[in-house]
Amino acid sequence: MSEIVIKKYPKLLHGGDYNPDQWLDCPEILEEDIRLMKKAGVNAVSLGIFAWAALEPEEGVYAFDWLEKMIDRLYSEGIYTVLATPTGAMPNWLTEKYEEVRQVTPEGVRHLPGKRHNYCPTSPIMREKTKAIDTALSKRFGRHPAVILWHISNEIGGNDHQSACWCPKCQAAFRQWLREKYGTLENLNHAWWTAFWSHTYTSWEQIHAPSPAGEPWLHGLNLDWRRFTTVQMRDFYREEVKAVRTYSTVPVTANMMGFFKDLDYPKFADDIDIISWDAYPEWHSEADDVNIAVWAAANHNIMRSMKKAPFLMMESTPSVTNWKKNNIQKRPGMHEVSSMQAIALGSLSVQYFQWRKSRGSMEKFHGAVVGHIDHGNTRVFKEVAALGEHLASVSDAVYHTCNKPEVAMIFDWENWWALEDCAGPKRGSEMHYVETFLSHYKPFWMMGIDVDMVDMDADLDGYKLIIAPMNYMYKDGYARKVREFVQKGGIYVTTYWSGLVDETDLCFIDQAPLQDVLGLWVEETDSPNEFYENEFEYDGQRYPAKDICDIVRTTGAQKLASYCGDYYEGRAALTKNSFGDGTAYYIASGSSEEFCIDFYTELIRKYEIHQAIPTELPYGVTVSKREAAAPGAKTLYFVQNFNPYEVTVMLDHPYHCLETDEMLGEFLEMKGYSCTVLY
Amino acid sequence: MSEIVIKKYPKLLHGGDYNPDQWLDCPEILEEDIRLMKKAGVNAVSLGIFAWAALEPEEGVYAFDWLEKMIDRLYSEGIYTVLATPTGAMPNWLTEKYEEVRQVTPEGVRHLPGKRHNYCPTSPIMREKTKAIDTALSKRFGRHPAVILWHISNEIGGNDHQSACWCPKCQAAFRQWLREKYGTLENLNHAWWTAFWSHTYTSWEQIHAPSPAGEPWLHGLNLDWRRFTTVQMRDFYREEVKAVRTYSTVPVTANMMGFFKDLDYPKFADDIDIISWDAYPEWHSEADDVNIAVWAAANHNIMRSMKKAPFLMMESTPSVTNWKKNNIQKRPGMHEVSSMQAIALGSLSVQYFQWRKSRGSMEKFHGAVVGHIDHGNTRVFKEVAALGEHLASVSDAVYHTCNKPEVAMIFDWENWWALEDCAGPKRGSEMHYVETFLSHYKPFWMMGIDVDMVDMDADLDGYKLIIAPMNYMYKDGYARKVREFVQKGGIYVTTYWSGLVDETDLCFIDQAPLQDVLGLWVEETDSPNEFYENEFEYDGQRYPAKDICDIVRTTGAQKLASYCGDYYEGRAALTKNSFGDGTAYYIASGSSEEFCIDFYTELIRKYEIHQAIPTELPYGVTVSKREAAAPGAKTLYFVQNFNPYEVTVMLDHPYHCLETDEMLGEFLEMKGYSCTVLY
Amino acid sequence: MSEIVIKKYPKLLHGGDYNPDQWLDCPEILEEDIRLMKKAGVNAVSLGIFAWAALEPEEGVYAFDWLEKMIDRLYSEGIYTVLATPTGAMPNWLTEKYEEVRQVTPEGVRHLPGKRHNYCPTSPIMREKTKAIDTALSKRFGRHPAVILWHISNEIGGNDHQSACWCPKCQAAFRQWLREKYGTLENLNHAWWTAFWSHTYTSWEQIHAPSPAGEPWLHGLNLDWRRFTTVQMRDFYREEVKAVRTYSTVPVTANMMGFFKDLDYPKFADDIDIISWDAYPEWHSEADDVNIAVWAAANHNIMRSMKKAPFLMMESTPSVTNWKKNNIQKRPGMHEVSSMQAIALGSLSVQYFQWRKSRGSMEKFHGAVVGHIDHGNTRVFKEVAALGEHLASVSDAVYHTCNKPEVAMIFDWENWWALEDCAGPKRGSEMHYVETFLSHYKPFWMMGIDVDMVDMDADLDGYKLIIAPMNYMYKDGYARKVREFVQKGGIYVTTYWSGLVDETDLCFIDQAPLQDVLGLWVEETDSPNEFYENEFEYDGQRYPAKDICDIVRTTGAQKLASYCGDYYEGRAALTKNSFGDGTAYYIASGSSEEFCIDFYTELIRKYEIHQAIPTELPYGVTVSKREAAAPGAKTLYFVQNFNPYEVTVMLDHPYHCLETDEMLGEFLEMKGYSCTVLY
Repeated sequence: MSEIVIKKYPKLLHGGDYNPDQWLDCPEILEEDIRLMKKAGVNAVSLGIFAWAALEPEEGVYAFDWLEKMIDRLYSEGIYTVLATPTGAMPNWLTEKYEEVRQVTPEGVRHLPGKRHNYCPTSPIMREKTKAIDTALSKRFGRHPAVILWHISNEIGGNDHQSACWCPKCQAAFRQWLREKYGTLENLNHAWWTAFWSHTYTSWEQIHAPSPAGEPWLHGLNLDWRRFTTVQMRDFYREEVKAVRTYSTVPVTANMMGFFKDLDYPKFADDIDIISWDAYPEWHSEADDVNIAVWAAANHNIMRSMKKAPFLMMESTPSVTNWKKNNIQKRPGMHEVSSMQAIALGSLSVQYFQWRKSRGSMEKFHGAVVGHIDHGNTRVFKEVAALGEHLASVSDAVYHTCNKPEVAMIFDWENWWALEDCAGPKRGSEMHYVETFLSHYKPFWMMGIDVDMVDMDADLDGYKLIIAPMNYMYKDGYARKVREFVQKGGIYVTTYWSGLVDETDLCFIDQAPLQDVLGLWVEETDSPNEFYENEFEYDGQRYPAKDICDIVRTTGAQKLASYCGDYYEGRAALTKNSFGDGTAYYIASGSSEEFCIDFYTELIRKYEIHQAIPTELPYGVTVSKREAAAPGAKTLYFVQNFNPYEVTVMLDHPYHCLETDEMLGEFLEMKGYSCTVLY
Repeated sequence: MSEIVIKKYPKLLHGGDYNPDQWLDCPEILEEDIRLMKKAGVNAVSLGIFAWAALEPEEGVYAFDWLEKMIDRLYSEGIYTVLATPTGAMPNWLTEKYEEVRQVTPEGVRHLPGKRHNYCPTSPIMREKTKAIDTALSKRFGRHPAVILWHISNEIGGNDHQSACWCPKCQAAFRQWLREKYGTLENLNHAWWTAFWSHTYTSWEQIHAPSPAGEPWLHGLNLDWRRFTTVQMRDFYREEVKAVRTYSTVPVTANMMGFFKDLDYPKFADDIDIISWDAYPEWHSEADDVNIAVWAAANHNIMRSMKKAPFLMMESTPSVTNWKKNNIQKRPGMHEVSSMQAIALGSLSVQYFQWRKSRGSMEKFHGAVVGHIDHGNTRVFKEVAALGEHLASVSDAVYHTCNKPEVAMIFDWENWWALEDCAGPKRGSEMHYVETFLSHYKPFWMMGIDVDMVDMDADLDGYKLIIAPMNYMYKDGYARKVREFVQKGGIYVTTYWSGLVDETDLCFIDQAPLQDVLGLWVEETDSPNEFYENEFEYDGQRYPAKDICDIVRTTGAQKLASYCGDYYEGRAALTKNSFGDGTAYYIASGSSEEFCIDFYTELIRKYEIHQAIPTELPYGVTVSKREAAAPGAKTLYFVQNFNPYEVTVMLDHPYHCLETDEMLGEFLEMKGYSCTVLY
Repeated sequence: MSEIVIKKYPKLLHGGDYNPDQWLDCPEILEEDIRLMKKAGVNAVSLGIFAWAALEPEEGVYAFDWLEKMIDRLYSEGIYTVLATPTGAMPNWLTEKYEEVRQVTPEGVRHLPGKRHNYCPTSPIMREKTKAIDTALSKRFGRHPAVILWHISNEIGGNDHQSACWCPKCQAAFRQWLREKYGTLENLNHAWWTAFWSHTYTSWEQIHAPSPAGEPWLHGLNLDWRRFTTVQMRDFYREEVKAVRTYSTVPVTANMMGFFKDLDYPKFADDIDIISWDAYPEWHSEADDVNIAVWAAANHNIMRSMKKAPFLMMESTPSVTNWKKNNIQKRPGMHEVSSMQAIALGSLSVQYFQWRKSRGSMEKFHGAVVGHIDHGNTRVFKEVAALGEHLASVSDAVYHTCNKPEVAMIFDWENWWALEDCAGPKRGSEMHYVETFLSHYKPFWMMGIDVDMVDMDADLDGYKLIIAPMNYMYKDGYARKVREFVQKGGIYVTTYWSGLVDETDLCFIDQAPLQDVLGLWVEETDSPNEFYENEFEYDGQRYPAKDICDIVRTTGAQKLASYCGDYYEGRAALTKNSFGDGTAYYIASGSSEEFCIDFYTELIRKYEIHQAIPTELPYGVTVSKREAAAPGAKTLYFVQNFNPYEVTVMLDHPYHCLETDEMLGEFLEMKGYSCTVLY
């Protein structure tokens, strides 16, 4: 099993962001908060996010007493503290005095003070001021018994402009990073193929970050700029980690944002002790919640897969968001099942943004446990309190389990960047990497099969099946890894528009890099529109062929499906190729959800991939398994019903209910929007 | 009755914007204009709008002779002058020489010369140059017998960027205004709740106007910036008024733009002698013209309600506009009924933009009385001339009447700003204040009931019924005024998403400010989308519950309607509460037009609100009443048919026709698009 | 017949853009290219486009050896060179060192280095550097036997911002150009009607180019700025021509972009020896390809009509583009018919962008003859090779023919600019000049009638029929030319929204300029929306009256069709007027495709306009005629089938097939997407 990271308090956490700094002049509200937290089963709160102005009201003058009083008071009531560094938002004295801390836009405009998550990661002054306050916090609170985790900054990079800063200091650092990466301009010119449009660089100083006012279409440059952004933001993050560790051994985290394109999160994993993320699925935004549950599950899986270890759900709303065009309330029960879904997939917490609604500004109408009026007596409060009880009752059992999938999917940030920047059969923005990825995952969710989601740098060993949708780029070494995986008996599935470019977005020429493994190469890629609808036939049934259709030449692969029309009628739409001890599938054509379900169902059957519970699950229901990972621990089965109505799940044998220890029959009756934990 | 403001010529005005400065080299055209004006029954024209370059061709060199000749010549033909100050557009010599007169955008970019309505209201040079020419105009023309009214500038604030200027001088003035308003930074920080996201100000200099490049989401700042804009533009306006009054006692006006969000018009009312506005309803842009007539009527009502006195329609098109995506001609008769609608609701004029189409530039294809070819013989000219005759025939009778509604609706600019800036159940831009407001007014229009439309600062005394839709903000003292109004027997109707924040956009906490009056508080606000359609049942009928649905806890209110579905089934969708001698209604749910009609029809019946003529009006027909306001005056009934087809209106008793003095029967036959004035 | 321009190699060219500078380190690829070119029947390639960085790697240091080697090597294999000047894209050393070469946006922002087609045309340094390298190229290659044509720059003006630069140098040049054009500010103020909104200029320095930050709505200014842009870009182009001619007598061309709004292409014609353009119709983007073929044909016609001489298709894709939202492959055969369409309408070449796909950057996935993998064995390569054979087989016959239409349509850039900048019945952007123009051309395409497309400056003599849709502006002298044309027996058709303004966008006043010829004037222009649908009746049938409906007063014209409804029921929707020996038609109302077909079919019949082959052509089939133009030459008939399916075309008599010399029967069987050349 995974090592326990939060050693001071190895329990499922329940609580969330708490901003007493907004209410320091209202002691009665703070006392009321304590009373309500205990009623709601809260055991951990995040303090100090966005409190820089309160902690350092003037440059170099720290005011930590209120925070210490707060931590002590909470601790005295059994409530632990996740302590944030305050760099999520800069105070006005800092942004006003030191222009360089403020980011510059791609158009070259220096931001005015304001907003959040928008410091320049290169600015020496920003680094100095950050180090100073982080070190001071470490000194004062780093060994406090209540402080169980450092929460470094907040939602790093979560602002406009690709999380990047276009200031001269950042651009100089970028050039330096390029020098180190490429050594010579010759190498860089070749990698970026600058001869095209005569943009050969003859001096490092000629290199500018991509800009709508300059060069936005040099894919190699775009890609390296995004890589540099991750490197630079991570470097700033590392400085913060170093500072808080000055006087503290408490573990660190940084709350991520799931499918957040601008930072290559797996690159942060080594510097984080426990992964965490802020979960805001758009519940109730479709006719039913299955696609949203699939989206949420994929995010949880990506988080878990980064370190192949449990993670934290650091934020979620108990009720409603306030930043979408339309913000619908979570229906009764949705809070229970969406929270338990996180636990089922590896989370060790259900934390909220926010404990109490603020009185003013941007997020005053964001859902919270405690509202503006009549606290503690609302539907929302009661659902939160009920969940608190559930979490407490399953906490110990859950802590000794872990998720162990047989299936992995490749989700790679660099592929995402390159794919959606390319101008190919469709404009990059029309390639929809995430949506395509999810359409290949959904069948597994529907059958209750857990999936790891890793990038191309990950170790592929130990999986039975690996799926790589729209794997446009092959990073260095990736093709070799896949070849070995299949050679040794693995099952590999990939799709159209894969394997076209190398790590610098240069096309492979002469030979496709996995032609031997896949048994084919691609002659043309068509992008039929609504006037050229096509189909392919697979296993006696017809499915739509759409969006992107590769026209392949097989060099050994077996044709499993053929196009039914247009000028490529009869050409392969789906192939299978034996290679070594394994097998590789190539899906040449975009298709429907039905195809994905039918195709993967057949693969699951054929290659004996295990469902959590081997049964036919009702629509909208899934099961996640956390396997026993310690002597005497139980393997747990989280049966989740995302339908608003009751369902009966037929089990393969009777199970116990974890909460009640009761033995249940083979027919599990479930309420709408609910989760039952079995063993 | 209201005092007569335009004492020199107390008649209904007919005429409009006239730009002889564009034709000074064509004396034959000027003479032709005089001939045609007389043919069209024109008695007043607006001169000098946009004539700065002609009046002051070089800095400090005035050229007023052409204008004097024009005023004299027109006067000799019985045509009066509304004399404009020329600040509507700045001449090139001014904008080129003095950069500071040009506005700066929210992004910090100084405008180039060009466009109009875009001076910096703070610029000392702009104020100095304005004072100089306004004073000179006052000296030369302020006592001219032909000059009956000062037309200060033009459509003040009518450009991009919220009518505001982001230049350093404006920002300094803003900071000064904030100092005076808040006294201390502590007060300001609390009011704006700056602790959120750590944006506490520690010096006044740290405050910047809201900007996409800086802080766009601090609602208190946004609100105060808009307030300051109104204050500063009004201050500039006051300077102009002062200048023209140097040598003149002629009354002043400023032509407004109705539902124009960027300036809080009621704040100008005290400094205007007679309100005026430019009316451009989008006639014929829907399947029928009822909604457009309702929109126009609401604008007229807002204008009239500001001073509870007659106003002027200063611009309108006799035919067509040219600045919409599609510009459809007014159908025959529409000009008659749309013009008489203005008179019916309190206007003392029908003025046009423009008398004659210009030869070049932006508005050369905008509708005008006189076109480019064959003047005076067109359909449009003939309709204008016919209207001129009508106006002359009813002028004296109308002049001794006034509108006196029993119903008031709250329409408040500050509420508009705050509501559509908030991030709540929907994004602010999805809150649609004006549309919601109009949906509550439409039933009254359909029944021929006049309504005053006032802001929260108005006196509520004397009304029977007050309606406050989406009254998100309660200004200081407003709740108290409403409480007194209901206490003393008034009927008060308000809706979902009301009473949430105070004047600085801080949420009320602990207790809703009108809970006693309404008998309820709001536990949750849901924003159901198309997948969660709901209904409520009221008086035996089902209506859609949509957009925004408050889930209330009643504390005394009676439930008049209940939700039919979803998790709040059975909860109140409409309540009634007795308080003191009055009654308060709370509409908890968005619904359909049908609901508004049925609900208000019942209220009108129950509380004996009077229709202008107590009869069932055909669809598309309304009646407005101007009550006799002088000894011997007649109460007038303006029956308006906005249908393209003939209708018969059944009257409660025979009336006289004002134009013909004929006694009509009880069945009034009306042509399509027409207005008949009865007494 | 037209003079032969490319004297060194008077054959149909086949080849395209070739960028060996991207592959200089891969000699094996260059050799493979030669092998494949010969296999594909390539006889001419364009070299050096975008090669500035390769040709002048450092300022003043030329590296021409690789180019010479390439030209020689190709020549030794019978492949000729179209040699480009490299100004299409600037090298980084140039843009980095000399800021002034980079354009400035309308907002006043200087571009960063990057992109292409974006030099400042006024910059003395840019002109100097261009002259230097162009002269050097001329010296080295100007007399090389392989070099048959100079390709000046690339797609001149093809970037954002209306092809213009807003830098101070350009603005100074603009002012100078205005001084020369207008002489005095009085003249300019009158022409631009600046008195409107008080924008009278009192010094030349006050004039700024149009800008969203300044004055965007002064139509006369906008128009003159666009004219100046053409003048300035042409001036730069002329400098390049002068430079390459220093040592060379080889003809010059500049590849245009067809319906490219930003440059008034006919103004370049005198300085170009042979017109050329880059053809990218959006094949397969609609349910069938007829509209796309019409669009392509119109472009070819405009190119041919500029000099009334053959032209070159300088670029086209053999398969697919990569810069649209969706890029669908050309279906088998489409390449054949689309290429032969160009020849049929006057092209002397089928050239491609690009010979070989680049490995990296923006256009690596753009269609090419040779792809990244398995060159020379693909469907696309084979279709290209087959076309190469066809072209070779018809080359000599085609070279002695030319197109000679009886019909001309007015397509005028200045009218386009003014029309789509106006604010009239619709917003300018809703006027859709090109679409309207094409709807009047389509009937001729469907009947196999060739049409010249000329601007208002063209000679109108020699045509039977002239059509001028939405001819909003009448340039100086145009009305006189039309009057003479009709007087002498010509048939003239024009439409609503024509003849409103003169060359400076000033409205005609008092009298419409062609009232005598048309026999009418326009009283009102209505713009009915979907709620005011109308029809007119013509020749016993009803057609929709929509978009724009003029309401005319006839002063002699005969009414051929009347509106069926609304307030202008019975008024003329279509008129005919005899004038001198000719006849003028006025189409007062927008209508349907059916109307255009029926109306022009009747005109063609009545006035005996000749079809290429007098027969009823199947849908999707057209015929273009190239008439014998030399002793012994044959008149050729290009029958083009744009349907994906087979058709039979009934001919009026048996013809020979040009490729086979075989006599064919009267029933011509054609494959889907194919072209047969008959004589």
